[in-house]
Amino acid sequence: MSFPVSILATGSELLDGRVVDTNSNFVAQALSECGLKLQRVLLVDDDRSELVAGLRELSSVSRLIITSGGLGPTTDDLTRDIVSEFFGVGLYEEPKARTHLEGFLKKRGRVLDSSNIKQAYLPVGSEMIPNELGTAPGFTMVRGDGLVVCSLSGVPREFKKMFTDSVLPLIMERAQNAQRLQKVSFKTFGMPESYVGQVIERCALPEQVIVSYRAAMPEIHVRLKAVESFDLSASVEKVRAALGPSLIFSEDPQQSFFERLQELLLQKRATIATAESCTGGLIAEYLTRTPGSSEVFLGSVVSYDNAVKEKVLQVPGGVIAQHGAVSAEVVRIMAREVRNLMGATFGVAVSGVAGPGGGTDEKPVGTFFIGIAGPERSFELRCFYGSERSIIRTYAAYVTLDLVRRELQGHPIPSSYPIGA
Amino acid sequence: MSFPVSILATGSELLDGRVVDTNSNFVAQALSECGLKLQRVLLVDDDRSELVAGLRELSSVSRLIITSGGLGPTTDDLTRDIVSEFFGVGLYEEPKARTHLEGFLKKRGRVLDSSNIKQAYLPVGSEMIPNELGTAPGFTMVRGDGLVVCSLSGVPREFKKMFTDSVLPLIMERAQNAQRLQKVSFKTFGMPESYVGQVIERCALPEQVIVSYRAAMPEIHVRLKAVESFDLSASVEKVRAALGPSLIFSEDPQQSFFERLQELLLQKRATIATAESCTGGLIAEYLTRTPGSSEVFLGSVVSYDNAVKEKVLQVPGGVIAQHGAVSAEVVRIMAREVRNLMGATFGVAVSGVAGPGGGTDEKPVGTFFIGIAGPERSFELRCFYGSERSIIRTYAAYVTLDLVRRELQGHPIPSSYPIGA
Repeated sequence: MSFPVSILATGSELLDGRVVDTNSNFVAQALSECGLKLQRVLLVDDDRSELVAGLRELSSVSRLIITSGGLGPTTDDLTRDIVSEFFGVGLYEEPKARTHLEGFLKKRGRVLDSSNIKQAYLPVGSEMIPNELGTAPGFTMVRGDGLVVCSLSGVPREFKKMFTDSVLPLIMERAQNAQRLQKVSFKTFGMPESYVGQVIERCALPEQVIVSYRAAMPEIHVRLKAVESFDLSASVEKVRAALGPSLIFSEDPQQSFFERLQELLLQKRATIATAESCTGGLIAEYLTRTPGSSEVFLGSVVSYDNAVKEKVLQVPGGVIAQHGAVSAEVVRIMAREVRNLMGATFGVAVSGVAGPGGGTDEKPVGTFFIGIAGPERSFELRCFYGSERSIIRTYAAYVTLDLVRRELQGHPIPSSYPIGA
Repeated sequence: MSFPVSILATGSELLDGRVVDTNSNFVAQALSECGLKLQRVLLVDDDRSELVAGLRELSSVSRLIITSGGLGPTTDDLTRDIVSEFFGVGLYEEPKARTHLEGFLKKRGRVLDSSNIKQAYLPVGSEMIPNELGTAPGFTMVRGDGLVVCSLSGVPREFKKMFTDSVLPLIMERAQNAQRLQKVSFKTFGMPESYVGQVIERCALPEQVIVSYRAAMPEIHVRLKAVESFDLSASVEKVRAALGPSLIFSEDPQQSFFERLQELLLQKRATIATAESCTGGLIAEYLTRTPGSSEVFLGSVVSYDNAVKEKVLQVPGGVIAQHGAVSAEVVRIMAREVRNLMGATFGVAVSGVAGPGGGTDEKPVGTFFIGIAGPERSFELRCFYGSERSIIRTYAAYVTLDLVRRELQGHPIPSSYPIGA
């Protein structure tokens, strides 16, 4: 990384749990868009020695440090003092800052007082960073060796606007000589992270390719990155082939699993209806998260009670009595009946033991059966994922939808889903 | 601060913006409960020299460092190597860790392989921190001078459980200034945070009482805290009366809104069935999150498509044509019919415009109708909450269930829900 950027965020509210630092993630995403990456994020208290130590430590590994917070009018706002000390300069009253403050306060029926006027003072030699949304202007300082410190308001909407308008352009200008990174994403579902990791390792990619993994449970995302001058295509082909088209559900980093399924259903002009027992409506909820879902999703029968399975989905009481509600026989009928009832291309059904109670030796907690009734064929799959209730339900819903995805894409149906871990 | 605790979080997903670090905020809140505060939070990349530098820097200002992440099975998981190097020891295969891994994988129908086995290795001299929810166990190392390093999985639910079960007790034991505060929680739904804040302010509580608010949207939680020697009972009574019993759904900090509703349904031996349009199964999903939900929840018809409303819920096509699918007339029939179909005590129905498309001048995005059909009476409520799709769906589901809660408790039904903001 040729232009390392770090963040020094200050504020006791970050360290006592009242506020989650979202400014850093905003910067991280913005840099990532430009092929750059944050070096470090350091959160410290509104404390003189902590701020000084933070600046010192980050300056040893960064070429640009963004400070967030500590520019307010109160006594615990120390950033402008500490940064000017760090650069060995004093403060001066910046006329543009004073004009901004007076105008900002006047608009709100207030006048500049001895507390606010502090915010018009900037380190000698700095350049002011305007803050249209708040009182405190920020500033940029540059050291002889090229180290840049940009101090911004910590209020998220102020920080984000100041960063986008003033700091990002400065980074892009200075990081010009730095090589940008190209990125390729593979989003997978169906195999555990350890398996995905082994597959990638066996690809023996060139050392110029940076591989990273993210477990967005139950999805596993893989990302390949390299400098723009490097030809990544051979590595991408290798990984794509090694993971295989049935494991990869999308290569678009912005596309969710559910959006991908909706896209495939739309492409095939297919519709879906669900009959859910242990997932309790979760599959329907997933399918309706995406705007436009009414084009592909017709409805669901959540047949939690066995009487609802019998009455609404025509599952004969005798079948439930003989095989149990958690069985291939029952999901076969549920899937077929909900498909018929709603006139859908695909009827899907799930019945399982989500726990914590209700498990047996034969069907322990985590056992679920999935039934898929499609236009060409129908089938059932028995799965097992021993975990806690919410995760079992999530996995059962994902596996069900993944089976539909594989059917739509013409991929083989796996005999099991060893997901997780 | 006599026992400074810091966090070293590692993972390229934290620095390239894919993931927001929420583990630190969780720790910050937990420490705050005990009168302690975090010293620093440092996010670094999965990089050898960065991890080493991070440990060195934090160890100079902390007595306990929690590392988050880097315990997975892939090559970018470096934490156990770096921590053992920092302590100048090697790694050994911990039998308890191996047993855990084997058991964890076996439960999921998998076996220990060369990649997973890495997770059974811990630094020599460390004590294992169990990880019930994932594969990677954590560990605690203690240096001669008393410095403690606790390494935990970075997966939030694993991190949080490991921190709560193993690290927090260790901090409470070692930190002399940690003091338990007594706490009383009020969980509310139905009025905005600003209203709740004004109600509490008017209570004029003694200065020994610390009030904090948490917007666990769409719920608003209020907490009163005081040192254990202070008599909090008068303040609790005042707040309870000021908020009122219809706004407070629970005073148990561990009890969710859905658990409370399930408890009330069980007490009245009542059951519920739902007919959902814009919420797409979310209400059913909420109701089935809690173990034992089959005692009170019978099932749901998600009638996303109007044909399903007609065929399964007997809503006459003429009523839809005349009043629209989003109308009091339609939810009245949906609620009544699902109640009859499933033989439930309460039939509830929602139909609305979740957006982003589909809004009209008369019924803009955010408009939803709720129908409640109960044993004693039936009614409909028109609501509006202009927001984005997922939030509109969440609010619609909550308002529906809150109306059932109020019916069960005999509280008056509000004419509107001015929730949010």
